[in-house]
Amino acid sequence: MSLVRVQHVTISLDGFGTGEGQSLEAPFGHAGERLHEWMFNTQWGRRMIGQPGGTSGIDDTFLRLFDKGIGAEIMGANKYGYPGWYKDPAWKGWWGPNPVFHTPVFVLTHHTRAPIEMEGGTTFHFINASPAEAVEAARKAAGGQDIRLGGGPTMIREFLQAGLVDHMHIVVAPILLGRGVRLWDGLEGMEKNFRIESVSSPSGVTHMTFTRAPGH
Amino acid sequence: MSLVRVQHVTISLDGFGTGEGQSLEAPFGHAGERLHEWMFNTQWGRRMIGQPGGTSGIDDTFLRLFDKGIGAEIMGANKYGYPGWYKDPAWKGWWGPNPVFHTPVFVLTHHTRAPIEMEGGTTFHFINASPAEAVEAARKAAGGQDIRLGGGPTMIREFLQAGLVDHMHIVVAPILLGRGVRLWDGLEGMEKNFRIESVSSPSGVTHMTFTRAPGH
Repeated sequence: MSLVRVQHVTISLDGFGTGEGQSLEAPFGHAGERLHEWMFNTQWGRRMIGQPGGTSGIDDTFLRLFDKGIGAEIMGANKYGYPGWYKDPAWKGWWGPNPVFHTPVFVLTHHTRAPIEMEGGTTFHFINASPAEAVEAARKAAGGQDIRLGGGPTMIREFLQAGLVDHMHIVVAPILLGRGVRLWDGLEGMEKNFRIESVSSPSGVTHMTFTRAPGH
Repeated sequence: MSLVRVQHVTISLDGFGTGEGQSLEAPFGHAGERLHEWMFNTQWGRRMIGQPGGTSGIDDTFLRLFDKGIGAEIMGANKYGYPGWYKDPAWKGWWGPNPVFHTPVFVLTHHTRAPIEMEGGTTFHFINASPAEAVEAARKAAGGQDIRLGGGPTMIREFLQAGLVDHMHIVVAPILLGRGVRLWDGLEGMEKNFRIESVSSPSGVTHMTFTRAPGH
């Protein structure tokens, strides 16, 4: 059975997965790039922007799992675009003509539209669906491979509340955003359903992995 | 100059330093002992309850700093007693006739009373004071040694907001309390004032140290 995975979703020390005031100019709101700075110094992160070099330690190791064994992604509407993107028929996401996904991507939205086929194997599908329905659709499209939950924090929280997450990798960055969208709200006691490991990186972030415990 | 230190204050992954519903029977509210389980398996923690054995790794190492170089503690009213303790003239804290502090302890409260001298060197002083005033009083009493901020989360937050903390050791436990008193509220951007290190322990907790950066 293919697994539902969350990969390197980063939150601040005070639990925010994105900042306040998201817009076309500021996809993460007032957080800017601060949540993701740890990625930029890795080999994986530098390759994403066409640069050589970078670290190959624990941060890079986790990032290299990004596409390994993944056959589809599900993402929230707030990851796919700025607030109100659905009013723009030409909007095709933040990632250029050849997005990083290279698989079917299911965008959860009340404003559905026809699928958009991009270069490199990415096709955006727009569905108005519950978390369970979205997993069912993504699983059919994933060809037996795993499904990535791409975020943002609101959709990950909803999939956790529905008990649909098999494996989760959360990165805690040592910054205090103060405001934004919290990942952990409404998840009291969730740790009982997972085996949890934490490991701190020299970059300052702490990697936490959550593996669903048998029987949960 | 003596330093103002926070030592092994533990918060949940979702940022709560104590649970909801604190009472005489439940000093940490619905959190029970879950925030502090990591302490119980250490040599330091077992000695506190008169038991032999225990680990001597990173958790124990941090705990052994509890009284090292400390000349006074400042604590919040909610650490000293259950809600409403000030109506009970016989209340002398949770710690028995010989409390663990062995120094002057300044309890921040609007309900002052005469000092209480306990066995073993602990004297409770009750002061209605601002964070800066409390540090001044504790520093006079500390004989040139450091001052421990004992918690709870509300008072630590207030001392952080006032810029009065020189060194802080926060322990993040991999549990989700869901409700209670948050440590980090209202501290946006505070990381800029500190050098921060994180290190995860085999026990599952992550130790974070915050050292005030020069010029802050």
